[in-house]
Amino acid sequence: MLVDGLPADQIPLTDRGLLYGDGLFETFAVLDGRPLLWQRHMARLQAGERAMGFPSSDKALLRREACQVCEGIGRGVLKIVLTRGSGGRGYRPSSQSQPRRIITLHPWPDYPQAWYTQGISLRLCDTRFSRQSRLAGIKHLNRLEQVLARAEWDDASIAEGLMCDEEGYLVSGTQSNLFMLQGDKLITPDLSQSGIAGVVRGLVLEQAENFALKPRIAMLRVNDLKNANALFVTNSVMGLCPVARFEAQRYDFKKIPPELLTLVEKSNNTET
Amino acid sequence: MLVDGLPADQIPLTDRGLLYGDGLFETFAVLDGRPLLWQRHMARLQAGERAMGFPSSDKALLRREACQVCEGIGRGVLKIVLTRGSGGRGYRPSSQSQPRRIITLHPWPDYPQAWYTQGISLRLCDTRFSRQSRLAGIKHLNRLEQVLARAEWDDASIAEGLMCDEEGYLVSGTQSNLFMLQGDKLITPDLSQSGIAGVVRGLVLEQAENFALKPRIAMLRVNDLKNANALFVTNSVMGLCPVARFEAQRYDFKKIPPELLTLVEKSNNTET
Repeated sequence: MLVDGLPADQIPLTDRGLLYGDGLFETFAVLDGRPLLWQRHMARLQAGERAMGFPSSDKALLRREACQVCEGIGRGVLKIVLTRGSGGRGYRPSSQSQPRRIITLHPWPDYPQAWYTQGISLRLCDTRFSRQSRLAGIKHLNRLEQVLARAEWDDASIAEGLMCDEEGYLVSGTQSNLFMLQGDKLITPDLSQSGIAGVVRGLVLEQAENFALKPRIAMLRVNDLKNANALFVTNSVMGLCPVARFEAQRYDFKKIPPELLTLVEKSNNTET
Repeated sequence: MLVDGLPADQIPLTDRGLLYGDGLFETFAVLDGRPLLWQRHMARLQAGERAMGFPSSDKALLRREACQVCEGIGRGVLKIVLTRGSGGRGYRPSSQSQPRRIITLHPWPDYPQAWYTQGISLRLCDTRFSRQSRLAGIKHLNRLEQVLARAEWDDASIAEGLMCDEEGYLVSGTQSNLFMLQGDKLITPDLSQSGIAGVVRGLVLEQAENFALKPRIAMLRVNDLKNANALFVTNSVMGLCPVARFEAQRYDFKKIPPELLTLVEKSNNTET
């Protein structure tokens, strides 16, 4: 674990990440010592820095430190947290504060193989995302809504919960983005008001046409999922995971092109 | 500074307060070694614990630790941060995690005396509060919206900025609650969707009738402030602060009963 480049397992009580959630984070799959989809994660981090008024961080330095932490790791999860650092008066940030970079390594979660061969079960969460256009899409540290949503169930047979926004529009899972396949259209919820614009979501949208699918971003409601031919969820660690069931409804994920489901693994060999 | 009762100035990188803003806080005015309006702060903390699914903290222990930190302090600001502690997997909280209590002391901010004798100037912020009924009113650690709002201006002559919610309803200042006086009515914005239910706001609502004022909680828009006879803002450290100006409009705060403006000072002698 590194804090500002030095081994550490603590941060000061004055850190604004702790005090206000005033920071950003990125979570990477690590394979053979390498954090995957690096450029895409950095593009999102950069967008977050702009939205929050952070100075632009030195991405080459982050890369060096990330690779240092991942050295010799076959499979793992890397997390970069970038806070606004210490300082300022109350909510007001100081123009002098230096962002603090926290880089930590975590075990690979070893999701059950059955998730990929048989599909996962989803539920609908009661907790909703609020709508906030200034923060939508970016991966900031204000994540209480997802914490409360994930605390709603304890049933290990349910892998993920879908969340709507306060207006009832579908946003995402608690820790993943959602896609529905309908005819030749591949549709994912609009994230202009809530949610996190996932790195794998971006990859899938870009690559959809290579699978003869038309990518669409849309305002979706829970009822719209009834018309789906198939569903899957995405995140950087689980990749693409097909859905077998959402509440009472079953889905046949055989309709998803198999090469699409392994898109992330293939990209890991070609993307930096 | 105390972390779980022991002197410390850091917390572990695994703390969920840092990772997700998964925690609560309270900010007290300290006078002569005593954190003021203690019972009211504890009632709000307790409401937050319930809303977030925290176990109920030992309030007598918090009190002992708070008094230990405040010992010998004439004037200061005490902050209690209560996080969900370390543990859990991703957003999912662990039923085993122990909340972590962080108690810190800060200098008294010494607001200009002119704020109280001449009134303050307010502006309208562009950044809005999102609407989230599950979290409205409680003082949790997801405070990015207020950070972004407070970063909007740098003009020292403007003491506070008012924030609306995403629907355009007035919520509060970035760090204070808002009241408007209109005839014999004392009106403050509804906080069922956004904002923090301030301890001093509660005190003012309770005591309004002692000043021949009718307390009202209402959905207000910015335009409604045009009809106000006077405005003031409240928080635990600034107390009640009269408003001289909001954007281009001037207010005559002489219409506020003078004894109302010193309500907090008087309560400090009678409330525990």
